[in-house]
Amino acid sequence: MSEEKENIQFQLTGELLHHVEHLIESNNDKELHKLLDDFHYADIAEILDELNLEEAMYVIKLLDSETTSDILMEMDEDNREKVLKNLSAKEIAEEIEELDTDDAADIISELSEERQQAVIAQIGDEEHKAEITELLAYDEDSAGGLMAKELVKVYETWTVAGCLRRIRGQAKEVTRVHSIYVVNREERLIGRLSLKDLVVAKNEQKIADIYISNVDSVNVNDHVEDVAKVMAKYDLEAIPVVDENKTLLGRITIDDIVDVLKEEAEKDYQLAAGITGDVEADDSILQLTRARLPWLFLGLVGGIGAFLIMEGFQESFNKYAVLFFFTPLIAAMAGNVGVQSSAIIVQGLANDDVKGSINSRLIKEMLLAALNGIILAAFLFLFVWITQGKANTALAISVSLVVVIIVAGLIGTFVPLFLNKRGIDPAIATGPFITTSNDIFGILIYFWIAKMILGI
Amino acid sequence: MSEEKENIQFQLTGELLHHVEHLIESNNDKELHKLLDDFHYADIAEILDELNLEEAMYVIKLLDSETTSDILMEMDEDNREKVLKNLSAKEIAEEIEELDTDDAADIISELSEERQQAVIAQIGDEEHKAEITELLAYDEDSAGGLMAKELVKVYETWTVAGCLRRIRGQAKEVTRVHSIYVVNREERLIGRLSLKDLVVAKNEQKIADIYISNVDSVNVNDHVEDVAKVMAKYDLEAIPVVDENKTLLGRITIDDIVDVLKEEAEKDYQLAAGITGDVEADDSILQLTRARLPWLFLGLVGGIGAFLIMEGFQESFNKYAVLFFFTPLIAAMAGNVGVQSSAIIVQGLANDDVKGSINSRLIKEMLLAALNGIILAAFLFLFVWITQGKANTALAISVSLVVVIIVAGLIGTFVPLFLNKRGIDPAIATGPFITTSNDIFGILIYFWIAKMILGI
Repeated sequence: MSEEKENIQFQLTGELLHHVEHLIESNNDKELHKLLDDFHYADIAEILDELNLEEAMYVIKLLDSETTSDILMEMDEDNREKVLKNLSAKEIAEEIEELDTDDAADIISELSEERQQAVIAQIGDEEHKAEITELLAYDEDSAGGLMAKELVKVYETWTVAGCLRRIRGQAKEVTRVHSIYVVNREERLIGRLSLKDLVVAKNEQKIADIYISNVDSVNVNDHVEDVAKVMAKYDLEAIPVVDENKTLLGRITIDDIVDVLKEEAEKDYQLAAGITGDVEADDSILQLTRARLPWLFLGLVGGIGAFLIMEGFQESFNKYAVLFFFTPLIAAMAGNVGVQSSAIIVQGLANDDVKGSINSRLIKEMLLAALNGIILAAFLFLFVWITQGKANTALAISVSLVVVIIVAGLIGTFVPLFLNKRGIDPAIATGPFITTSNDIFGILIYFWIAKMILGI
Repeated sequence: MSEEKENIQFQLTGELLHHVEHLIESNNDKELHKLLDDFHYADIAEILDELNLEEAMYVIKLLDSETTSDILMEMDEDNREKVLKNLSAKEIAEEIEELDTDDAADIISELSEERQQAVIAQIGDEEHKAEITELLAYDEDSAGGLMAKELVKVYETWTVAGCLRRIRGQAKEVTRVHSIYVVNREERLIGRLSLKDLVVAKNEQKIADIYISNVDSVNVNDHVEDVAKVMAKYDLEAIPVVDENKTLLGRITIDDIVDVLKEEAEKDYQLAAGITGDVEADDSILQLTRARLPWLFLGLVGGIGAFLIMEGFQESFNKYAVLFFFTPLIAAMAGNVGVQSSAIIVQGLANDDVKGSINSRLIKEMLLAALNGIILAAFLFLFVWITQGKANTALAISVSLVVVIIVAGLIGTFVPLFLNKRGIDPAIATGPFITTSNDIFGILIYFWIAKMILGI
């Protein structure tokens, strides 16, 4: 009990990795055990993610399933998949037995239908088996798909002393006791208690007299994003999950919500950058191509659209070649403004911050875009006038720029609001989607207005 | 104790808002009290955010400071600022007395230097005053700036029974007891205990015999993002904060980390969209302009750069006007590829996922970009060849596209890695920054290569 660890200082160095690889190669199980026993399972997972499959399997087989089950949960999904493929159904079941029901269900759901059945059949503990099977039935994006069955539950009729006695039993299964949930005879959730309340109360008091009836809960079918919003808003560390009849089914803890929030943020960020699917820098070139190529293709089609527009205006503008030289500027500004306004709306929608009517939003964005557009256009007017010496050309380009910016802002504001109303994730409206459509509209408007002003 | 609330169903309707406004207008304090007492403070904050200042002040003055302090913490920062301006130093001090030290310090730090002193002087509780003053000294982005002084601490020499007795006193001040921190005589952190461990242990045991010496901690000067990473990685719900000597100074809880993660994600998302500063959809047009205009101006300068390049190539291409019609396509593709590759790198860096050398990253991105580029270029070649009937023009444009995409991918990969090495937040490399530079490089490369291939 003397040595202290500061996990913040764990750094996966090349040296450490070589050392581990050397110990594996020389079958030095004793030293390897000694080395790894000092690490947190999350750190061991980080090491295994860097080893090849054969080496990773060596370590997995070396350590006991209590440790390896936690390590598996922390490993990169792709690597975990490979490891699981190399384990028998019985071995996976042994790992599963060590995990909480929510983690167990997550692991099993990654297996093929056929292997799922084989693994479940191998789970010895009947209660654990039944609970995992129940969890597997819920949608992955619902509260049911996120919750664990492990919780501490007391009946309103118990006394504090009886409660403490029984909790000692239940608590062994529950890693962290956030709240003690109070149910009535029909197993319906009627309140909560903290361990603190229980410790502070007198032994002979009844639970019915001390519990707090004001308990937040979510329905088992609620979407995980809504659960995350409720937990973040009310600063909850755990929330009970109930069905339509208020029967207590499970609980969701804040660490799972942290993961949901991170994944959500990453997905939105990638969509805004024109990347679909959950890819990482370390994924294969083929996986990355699948995530990136469709959006690039959209950009290509947009570029061809811009080409066709410019070709159409070719005749009118033989005199004004200079107009064509500004098309990348017009397209860039239309794209940038569109991305800015859509990003603000998408973020506002995610935070439930966007109130009021669509019309009032559009009017505000129009004023904002007009203000920005006029400032930028004034600058551009001076540049063209001074360098080209033609006030009417400068005027045509500048006025077009203002209109293009306003239209781009309106499209960027309208599209995510419209998608959201239709129940479609507005995040897909940011990035290449808005850039491409704004490129085309921008260039079209630009040539129309220039044609009008220059009278050709 | 009968009525149950389902907070997930709280919806701020126009009807509710009108009702609240009506009660304020008619000075119906009794009904207003009755209505608001049923709401969670986070919901009341949501209502106040929609009222005008006068109405909000009315509600603040009506409710007791125990409730209003929590409401203030949950309100939008801009609105809170306005409310605080309308409260006297004494009134703010009353709110502060109800808050945990971390929230109290956050509120005070939003005030002007002068008012900070006035408010602190009005705090009656000397210990609270000293603790808040200590917290105000830490950097906002450090563990010290995030931590609270409230925690449950026991000495290794105590017995379980003595511990439980004393904890009853300490725990009253601490909203949630995550961990009990064990210190030695010199106040140095040596371990931890959970309430569960204490409840399960025998009364006569010594803390020294039952505590867990393996305790994670962070240094008071660590950056909050690093604290968030440690807590997320090791699934911690609270972490103690220590100084260089391991003296226990405070603790950080996961709900604060959830806020840090959300803010971080929003900042990165906005930067990628070309928005600086922490703005929201509901901010004023002037605030939004300040956040958006600088990036648009950057785009304008980039557009002018593209114009100058095209003007420079004008003579060579009088024969090949069609080349100019493809510049928006080239610029768009360069921009999209750059944003994609930078986003993947920025995200990988944030997750500590980017291992290996910069060179291996660049080679991978080059292969990826070449693969994507060749597929897209093949399509473009066919389009130009079929519609224009000129194989050499089609070839020039397609080959350029491949080279432009490769260069754009390399720039998008290199810039964030380079910024990160220099200690600059790589997130600024995404969005308009990369788009603009890629536009210019893209168009320059495009004309060079076309000139070479067409032999002019």
